[in-house]
Amino acid sequence: MDQFEKKLSAMGYTLPPPPAPGGNYLPFRRSGKTIYLAGVIAVQNGQMTHTGQVGAGQTVETGYAAARVCALNALAAIKLALGSLDEMAQILFLGGYVNAVSGFAESPQVINGASDFLVELFGERGQHARAAVAVAGLPKDSTVELQLIVEALPFEKGTSVSKPVRMP
Amino acid sequence: MDQFEKKLSAMGYTLPPPPAPGGNYLPFRRSGKTIYLAGVIAVQNGQMTHTGQVGAGQTVETGYAAARVCALNALAAIKLALGSLDEMAQILFLGGYVNAVSGFAESPQVINGASDFLVELFGERGQHARAAVAVAGLPKDSTVELQLIVEALPFEKGTSVSKPVRMP
Amino acid sequence: MDQFEKKLSAMGYTLPPPPAPGGNYLPFRRSGKTIYLAGVIAVQNGQMTHTGQVGAGQTVETGYAAARVCALNALAAIKLALGSLDEMAQILFLGGYVNAVSGFAESPQVINGASDFLVELFGERGQHARAAVAVAGLPKDSTVELQLIVEALPFEKGTSVSKPVRMP
Repeated sequence: MDQFEKKLSAMGYTLPPPPAPGGNYLPFRRSGKTIYLAGVIAVQNGQMTHTGQVGAGQTVETGYAAARVCALNALAAIKLALGSLDEMAQILFLGGYVNAVSGFAESPQVINGASDFLVELFGERGQHARAAVAVAGLPKDSTVELQLIVEALPFEKGTSVSKPVRMP
Repeated sequence: MDQFEKKLSAMGYTLPPPPAPGGNYLPFRRSGKTIYLAGVIAVQNGQMTHTGQVGAGQTVETGYAAARVCALNALAAIKLALGSLDEMAQILFLGGYVNAVSGFAESPQVINGASDFLVELFGERGQHARAAVAVAGLPKDSTVELQLIVEALPFEKGTSVSKPVRMP
Repeated sequence: MDQFEKKLSAMGYTLPPPPAPGGNYLPFRRSGKTIYLAGVIAVQNGQMTHTGQVGAGQTVETGYAAARVCALNALAAIKLALGSLDEMAQILFLGGYVNAVSGFAESPQVINGASDFLVELFGERGQHARAAVAVAGLPKDSTVELQLIVEALPFEKGTSVSKPVRMP
């Protein structure tokens, strides 16, 4: 097992199977080293874990947990795209969508559920630029949806490497 | 006429002229082989074809048709950017925005109207990663808006080529 | 002072300090020449300048001004990423989110507040592809949020250059 999957396991999580697309689209597309992932929602073992809007049936706290479920599904898509989580150089961008009542102002606190998790797992490689907005609705009434853009390492699989990540 | 424009014609559609920007922006920007298209809405011959929200005046079915109108406008922008639809290597990402009532949960079914059309036209090259969300409102009250990122072929125009598309 | 910062000053604006991230994320991530900026909101000197929704407490006109405040914060992030505004080759994409009442149809008129400003400042380099949508809510109840993707010049800092920008 590769280093980040081991760490995930030590953190108490299991990498789920790649998310089944909920429409006519691919889980990812790759262009050079850039990988565009499809949106991922709060589903686990084929069942939605969090549905409904923050501010109505859901709260910032449950939304935070929903964002982590989404992030786990993003990891599955990254593994599908790269063969291993270890092959990811950095998360470039995380688009966070919160299904929320009109006027909801705490989307960052909800999306931190994904960001905190990804930074805990990957360290510097997991840090990312981000936009977090509240939207009117999400697929299958999911409480959160994430959409990531990640960069692949240029090294052949199996190479041990600690790539310096460009930081501000 | 190039192969994909011929196929479009055989499918019963005509490539519209490039969409007129509805604000101070460009229809596309190119960086290397990556082309960022501006958002496109449900307009045809200068008239909106679908306005209003899904869940109010519009339905999943009429939204599906609106998404196809948007996709036609995206094609026009791709031709503007590349000179020919044949010069597109792959659609990297499709952002689908559905103008919908709060709590709307079927954005994927609406955006499939664009995805089904693009995959029918382009085959593998037209497959894409995607995120589909419901939003509070769209320009000119359009029922759907699409925003695409596409990749250009590295070959000179006129070269006949079947580029293997990286798939999951 | 570099040329675009001088011009900004002549236009009557001061470059603010880089925006403090409102969550666990970076102000930008760079991959090759592509820089993904984090979302920026309508904040100035640590205080929100525009909160609430267009169509409720805010109007298209005040939203237009909010978009310009956001754009100033984006400039600060560009300078943080590149060392100087002069090192930016082009703005590739601007995602504009307007905090608005359900059914709001004038997001382009609001986001023009950012686009007009960026084009006035940078000329061709500042032109961009764009999508402008109305959303249910934004961080800290900001009236507008922008998310930019920009391209860096390939030249060493200090090189005087007028790079031809690819235009439609």
